[in-house]
Amino acid sequence: MTDLENNIQLGKNGRLRHFLSIDGLNKALLNEIMDRAESFTSVAAQTVKKVPLLRGKTIVNLFFENSTRTRTTFELAEKRLSADILNINIATSATSKGESLLDTIRNLEAMEVDMFVVRHGESGAAHFIASCVKPHISVINGGDGCHAHPTQAMLDMFTIRKIKGGFENLTVVIIGDILHSRVARSQLRALKMLGAKEIRIVAPKTLLPSFAESLGAKVFHDIEIGVENADVIIALRLQKERMQSALLPSGNEYFNRFGLTERRIEKANPDVIVMHPGPINRGVEMESKVADSPYSVILRQVTFGISIRMAIMSMAMHSK
Amino acid sequence: MTDLENNIQLGKNGRLRHFLSIDGLNKALLNEIMDRAESFTSVAAQTVKKVPLLRGKTIVNLFFENSTRTRTTFELAEKRLSADILNINIATSATSKGESLLDTIRNLEAMEVDMFVVRHGESGAAHFIASCVKPHISVINGGDGCHAHPTQAMLDMFTIRKIKGGFENLTVVIIGDILHSRVARSQLRALKMLGAKEIRIVAPKTLLPSFAESLGAKVFHDIEIGVENADVIIALRLQKERMQSALLPSGNEYFNRFGLTERRIEKANPDVIVMHPGPINRGVEMESKVADSPYSVILRQVTFGISIRMAIMSMAMHSK
Amino acid sequence: MTDLENNIQLGKNGRLRHFLSIDGLNKALLNEIMDRAESFTSVAAQTVKKVPLLRGKTIVNLFFENSTRTRTTFELAEKRLSADILNINIATSATSKGESLLDTIRNLEAMEVDMFVVRHGESGAAHFIASCVKPHISVINGGDGCHAHPTQAMLDMFTIRKIKGGFENLTVVIIGDILHSRVARSQLRALKMLGAKEIRIVAPKTLLPSFAESLGAKVFHDIEIGVENADVIIALRLQKERMQSALLPSGNEYFNRFGLTERRIEKANPDVIVMHPGPINRGVEMESKVADSPYSVILRQVTFGISIRMAIMSMAMHSK
Repeated sequence: MTDLENNIQLGKNGRLRHFLSIDGLNKALLNEIMDRAESFTSVAAQTVKKVPLLRGKTIVNLFFENSTRTRTTFELAEKRLSADILNINIATSATSKGESLLDTIRNLEAMEVDMFVVRHGESGAAHFIASCVKPHISVINGGDGCHAHPTQAMLDMFTIRKIKGGFENLTVVIIGDILHSRVARSQLRALKMLGAKEIRIVAPKTLLPSFAESLGAKVFHDIEIGVENADVIIALRLQKERMQSALLPSGNEYFNRFGLTERRIEKANPDVIVMHPGPINRGVEMESKVADSPYSVILRQVTFGISIRMAIMSMAMHSK
Repeated sequence: MTDLENNIQLGKNGRLRHFLSIDGLNKALLNEIMDRAESFTSVAAQTVKKVPLLRGKTIVNLFFENSTRTRTTFELAEKRLSADILNINIATSATSKGESLLDTIRNLEAMEVDMFVVRHGESGAAHFIASCVKPHISVINGGDGCHAHPTQAMLDMFTIRKIKGGFENLTVVIIGDILHSRVARSQLRALKMLGAKEIRIVAPKTLLPSFAESLGAKVFHDIEIGVENADVIIALRLQKERMQSALLPSGNEYFNRFGLTERRIEKANPDVIVMHPGPINRGVEMESKVADSPYSVILRQVTFGISIRMAIMSMAMHSK
Repeated sequence: MTDLENNIQLGKNGRLRHFLSIDGLNKALLNEIMDRAESFTSVAAQTVKKVPLLRGKTIVNLFFENSTRTRTTFELAEKRLSADILNINIATSATSKGESLLDTIRNLEAMEVDMFVVRHGESGAAHFIASCVKPHISVINGGDGCHAHPTQAMLDMFTIRKIKGGFENLTVVIIGDILHSRVARSQLRALKMLGAKEIRIVAPKTLLPSFAESLGAKVFHDIEIGVENADVIIALRLQKERMQSALLPSGNEYFNRFGLTERRIEKANPDVIVMHPGPINRGVEMESKVADSPYSVILRQVTFGISIRMAIMSMAMHSK
């Protein structure tokens, strides 16, 4: 699938056209995205927090799933790039009149839009749209099913690079429901591509995907061993809404077995950072003390998320 | 009613002030709208897809009925004219606190808005609003009950003119539920005003309005005879949601009797074009093959719809 | 509480940083707000109805309660100040994923926003947010529980000043459910601060708050006596949705006892003005004739509301 995705995501000139998954990209491109994001981090400090890079371009936020945080950060990134924005919440729109996804896309395309940001409950939805659209349109994956959430992974990588300076010497631990997490899949691929020294997974046996070890991650079931000497700990959100059956223990049990506490963090390196894609379930993935501790860089992730999305959207728009 | 509507829609200088229905307008004005739209078709090709014509003007999209497509194309047209936009979905707004339509209008007027785009389930709603507003405000009808949908009719006329060059030699066939279609009413009047050679209607007897023949349309109940030598075929959308009783057959039966198929289209002229206001019910108004065939200009209608709305809004705003 | 609020609302330089309640402000500041609003009243008359004062600033409209009118006038004020706007309706957002108010604020803050406009059903919500945010962020109270609605009070004061020229010689009567009205609380404080000659309250005994007389208002239970020689009559909206029990009579009974009629208004001064925060329940707080009479300045309140909000937001943004 890598070759196919490669063809879809990159234009003939090798530049980023769609941003659908970390798979199919390469280290140089991930670094280019982070370099570009770096240049946007100063925009927020300006009196006029805008650049005219996408002025007169139309971006459609096509959300088939509700997500205040992801929609909000994309929308802010789009506004700070001066784009025109169309928010379409598909749950309440024409598809209720029986229109197919393809017809919806064709119609928006006919309105001369330039970019789709897509969030969808089905894995592969953004790829499908990217495989259909006209040559001048870019598609950005804002999360599809259990498949990928690559802008989240990139903002995580950018956060790590900003704080740790690089990946080569890092031990990174991802804790939680890897099986259902589109965030984790994208993170694992990005960490490997960027050359993290050691990647670990801490999860209950029932929530381990088959691909985990093939991606070069070491698997742990005991958090206390898993976080030893870690430089970066990423706690995944407990995706209650995405669980289909009783594979997961209750919030309390989960916290007892996999929750981050100050005591457990003491086993990690002293300058360890704690990350989480948000919103946090306090007392489930971590105790409140940890979320608000100096270890936590969770709010910086949110800030960097806007620069990363500005970088990805402006690169995709100007690749053609 | 024509004289009254004439007075409401046109300012003292004879220029377009409100755009409520095709009735009351004249051929010169319809052509002026299409000429203006022509000048906007190039805006979408520019790097910066905007003109500053309505900069600093406030347009209220006042939607009493849901309509993703119509709202979306109006919103894009407004953004490309650089207007400030206020979207008000009345179903979820102050009227639920018991405010009357007139009070809602008076309050928005007091906020110094410049234009209302109105979509309402009751026939005459846009006229009512136009009859109340202050002299500097324009009202655009985005569809009212079974009465009119004149911007849709104008984008249809513009599509025909763009592709066929004019109306004088054309046989135009409208197929479907004429009785409940505000689109059809507006199309019939526009086609007559623009001098189409022959206008035909194909519909079941139960769905024929009394006004059909008085508008100079020939009525057919057999689609195979109705489309003979046609230059333009317009399939109406089956308005399931606007049906009050069991006047209509099921989707399947409808398709068998009135659905467009490649075989049926062979009876028309070889360069016939197929139009539909969208969204299409594939397998009901037409088979999928027809919707995606070279005959179909359905997506071009969508594209031209933005230019037509830009034309109508900028003309109405600058008529005073 | 005044001192505390004073500290929160004013910056070290004594200028307006947050706008949360009339309490804690002073006469000079209220006049400064109205002077600034005066300068904005001409913006609406310009061809381009915008000023670039907040260009590149991000304002979050954080509405925990629905309110078309308040949201709409804030949004227009923000657009006419050229700000970038994020509308967040919390009922349908991340809090449904179990995120606390504080986490929501921290996350929006991390997105480098500049101002929150907050409407919340709980008294004190805007104060709470103001007490948490970073130094560069301003909070504007768009109505919190039964506590305050200070931008409404300020637009009322501005309307009175515009029409009556000042407050010193005025008898102002507030009629209605003072107990549950955040508008009335803010009005009473503002009128006293601005030196109105006489402030009266007309209300049923069951709907009188304990603070009414301590604020220097004279209390009446008979409307016919209460409005004698009044210069300004403010009818409150019957807050059906905020009533917890059967403290209030039916709409009809209410009208009979407290409704404004032309006959009752005759007891007031001949140039009395009638005000209402909207939306009016016609036939409850006043008869329709009164709402549409020359006494009524209700629609001018709406117009002035935009200038007042532009004034408050631009002052708060530029106080740092």
